[in-house]
Amino acid sequence: MPSKIRPIIMCGGAGTMLWPTSRNSLPKQFAMLLGERSTFQDTVLRLRHKLFDRPIILTNHTHRVLAEKQLAEISASADIVLEPERRDSGPAILAGCMVAASQDADTTVLVVASDHVVTDPAAFRSAVANGLSAARARRLVTFGITARHACTEYGWIEPGVVLEGEARRVERFAEKPDGHRAAEYLLKGWLWNSGNFLFGAKTLIEEYRSFEPATVKAVEAALANGRDEDGAFALALADFVKAEKRSIDFAVMERTERAAVVATSCGWSDVGNWDALWALSDHDGSGNARRGNVELFDAHNCLVSTDGPMTSVLGVEDLIVVASRDAVLVADRNRAAEVKQVVELLRSKGCSQAETHASVQYAWGSYQIVDSGEGFQVKRLVVAPRGRLSLQKHRFRSEHWVVVRGTATVTIDETIGRFGRSEHIFIPLGAAHQLENSGIEPLELISVQNGSYLGEDDVIRVDAAQHWV
Amino acid sequence: MPSKIRPIIMCGGAGTMLWPTSRNSLPKQFAMLLGERSTFQDTVLRLRHKLFDRPIILTNHTHRVLAEKQLAEISASADIVLEPERRDSGPAILAGCMVAASQDADTTVLVVASDHVVTDPAAFRSAVANGLSAARARRLVTFGITARHACTEYGWIEPGVVLEGEARRVERFAEKPDGHRAAEYLLKGWLWNSGNFLFGAKTLIEEYRSFEPATVKAVEAALANGRDEDGAFALALADFVKAEKRSIDFAVMERTERAAVVATSCGWSDVGNWDALWALSDHDGSGNARRGNVELFDAHNCLVSTDGPMTSVLGVEDLIVVASRDAVLVADRNRAAEVKQVVELLRSKGCSQAETHASVQYAWGSYQIVDSGEGFQVKRLVVAPRGRLSLQKHRFRSEHWVVVRGTATVTIDETIGRFGRSEHIFIPLGAAHQLENSGIEPLELISVQNGSYLGEDDVIRVDAAQHWV
Repeated sequence: MPSKIRPIIMCGGAGTMLWPTSRNSLPKQFAMLLGERSTFQDTVLRLRHKLFDRPIILTNHTHRVLAEKQLAEISASADIVLEPERRDSGPAILAGCMVAASQDADTTVLVVASDHVVTDPAAFRSAVANGLSAARARRLVTFGITARHACTEYGWIEPGVVLEGEARRVERFAEKPDGHRAAEYLLKGWLWNSGNFLFGAKTLIEEYRSFEPATVKAVEAALANGRDEDGAFALALADFVKAEKRSIDFAVMERTERAAVVATSCGWSDVGNWDALWALSDHDGSGNARRGNVELFDAHNCLVSTDGPMTSVLGVEDLIVVASRDAVLVADRNRAAEVKQVVELLRSKGCSQAETHASVQYAWGSYQIVDSGEGFQVKRLVVAPRGRLSLQKHRFRSEHWVVVRGTATVTIDETIGRFGRSEHIFIPLGAAHQLENSGIEPLELISVQNGSYLGEDDVIRVDAAQHWV
Repeated sequence: MPSKIRPIIMCGGAGTMLWPTSRNSLPKQFAMLLGERSTFQDTVLRLRHKLFDRPIILTNHTHRVLAEKQLAEISASADIVLEPERRDSGPAILAGCMVAASQDADTTVLVVASDHVVTDPAAFRSAVANGLSAARARRLVTFGITARHACTEYGWIEPGVVLEGEARRVERFAEKPDGHRAAEYLLKGWLWNSGNFLFGAKTLIEEYRSFEPATVKAVEAALANGRDEDGAFALALADFVKAEKRSIDFAVMERTERAAVVATSCGWSDVGNWDALWALSDHDGSGNARRGNVELFDAHNCLVSTDGPMTSVLGVEDLIVVASRDAVLVADRNRAAEVKQVVELLRSKGCSQAETHASVQYAWGSYQIVDSGEGFQVKRLVVAPRGRLSLQKHRFRSEHWVVVRGTATVTIDETIGRFGRSEHIFIPLGAAHQLENSGIEPLELISVQNGSYLGEDDVIRVDAAQHWV
């Protein structure tokens, strides 16, 4: 019996097309865009099937904690590989294939994005099964989506003669077309390029080597010099940066003679912008998609979403309205693709909302800045059961903590104590302290911090074992 | 030399047309809609002139503190009369006239709204001066605005023959017309009805008595049975509620034979909705008016205002976007008049944002709820220099205070202490306590409150002298 397919889940992106919901501090793949799970979680669950082996997740140091938390929420586990720097998809996929091949030289891998939606997972798995004979015949199989309309937002694939099974030769990869060309492609039966792949790990490495031998060497070295980091495998930065920053499409797929395509209708979307999310969402009788505390009055074909202020919309159509505690976006739905440029402009103006959410996730839980002013800030910390922050001290601030839920176990210098609801703890400037939730319910506390500098980098770790403060 | 004109400034409204900026907790007349002063303040300043005497301000218990604070900010003083309940404009104006007449039987009063904009105050004052001879000849003078366009949002006045000075007879008051009629009125030289009036206090009372004698009796009794309340005069509720709830227009102006009109072009607007505010605001090269942390990308003829989240707008036109910490409104600018209905619907759904702001103003300063959850809430209190809260206690909550600016003088039961920045004070459940800022800079503190009930009504005042908690 042939071995199972090894999923490689690409999870290192930080897309800005769905700003302000998706930001570097909580990128699209981890956000609850549709329903109660993230697309990352849905991707993992889609591959929880006898066809597939334990997944390899490619992410980075920043997003590792989010990936681990979200895996735990769905009781899933995976091998985690950390990219020390973004070098586009090529080197990351290559690294994933090398990890898979090091464990089983003949393994077949399925490379999938973690921020796509597939409404028919069974159809997707069938397509993968249909591509297996081609992948085992050393083809690089991509998945082409049966086109539903003349889309200008996707690349297209021209399918050719049948090769193995249902896989056909790729005659051509076409860039995102204009409307005229897209209509032509649709008529000719071309397929949307989904950017998911199935191939032998070894085949991909060989092809990569023939086109970009230096990158293969760089990634081999990044693996050889990489190290375990609390159970994840971190590629070595000094080597990885020598890999050519190039997508797998340009590095291999558009150069190889071995490209094949399997067509599928699995309800796929890359949720590339707010308009795409609107199209995927449930609509009311007026074509509106809504999420959160929203009231609509004579609105049509709008997407209105809030996780903060109550949001009312009156007498408009084809609008995207996304509100959060610290940022609001209002955009013509037909211009959703330009949100990327908006975020770039905001970033260039030094606007923190372009990158960071008011709420920040850590392994131990999360915090949110609820108020701030000159020389002070107020945070709400939520510490998960058994969560523990590092033993730390601050050079420039003292902190007053008030427990508002659960029980805090607090170490300050040589003393340790337990504090229940409505109790107060003072952390003097310079005192070594540690916060832990040894209870079974979440611990919440309000921290009022006073000091001349309140940045997150004024944290001196006293024990180096904890990485997330 | 004849006595000066006594302004009666109507300040009891709580308009919802400019929601979410204008709410019951900070109505339109007190909001900084244009520039750095409220329309209430601009109204008071417009009448700070040798023509005018000390103003009488008609407001209510809820808004009195706002009026006093805003008067203090512009170093103005006034006689304040409190309506115990809203009975439309008629009884309030009648009460104002009775107060004025009780001090000077022959006084002429100018009744002005506090939520209108007048861009040419000198022209307005000239119009008042021009109406004086008619008012002294026992006319009820209204001010008609030379129409700038065929407006359907205002009532119109048909002017007739010249009476005294520049005052002409009112031939007819016309309701808000449809577009066709408005065009006709414009052609005929009719005037917009501004709803501001000049008349002898005695004349108004006499006319009122002839049309609504019961209301005159009710208001006389409300005055006779009214009482001083910390320097303001509070009309007696039991009597005032017997006054017919009717506007001055229906109660008197449309019935009297004595109505006269003085035309003026003083740049008047009642800022009746967001569209009107947009028209009055400074515009950028694309016709946009903006306020607060706003970024516009290819937006045209929009009003975008925020006092909370950073707000980005992309590729839209003719939109109203108003954001605050707890509510966002997005509306077609041409449907701004429907915001009133939106707020009514929100109110009927029990939505607190329809009525109340997250930040609440008091005589001693203000507070803002910055975070809340089950069994706790976090407030930031700002106490003005010399500000003092009442001596009070709570039945259902304890409070932890942390000073983040200035110095707090705190009494807890029998002890009194002073606390500086980053110091902590605990207020046990049931303890009588008082907070005071005896310093010269503002005092700010964070209050973390824990308890089974956290409503504003769990405040037991220990000294009854303070009304604002």
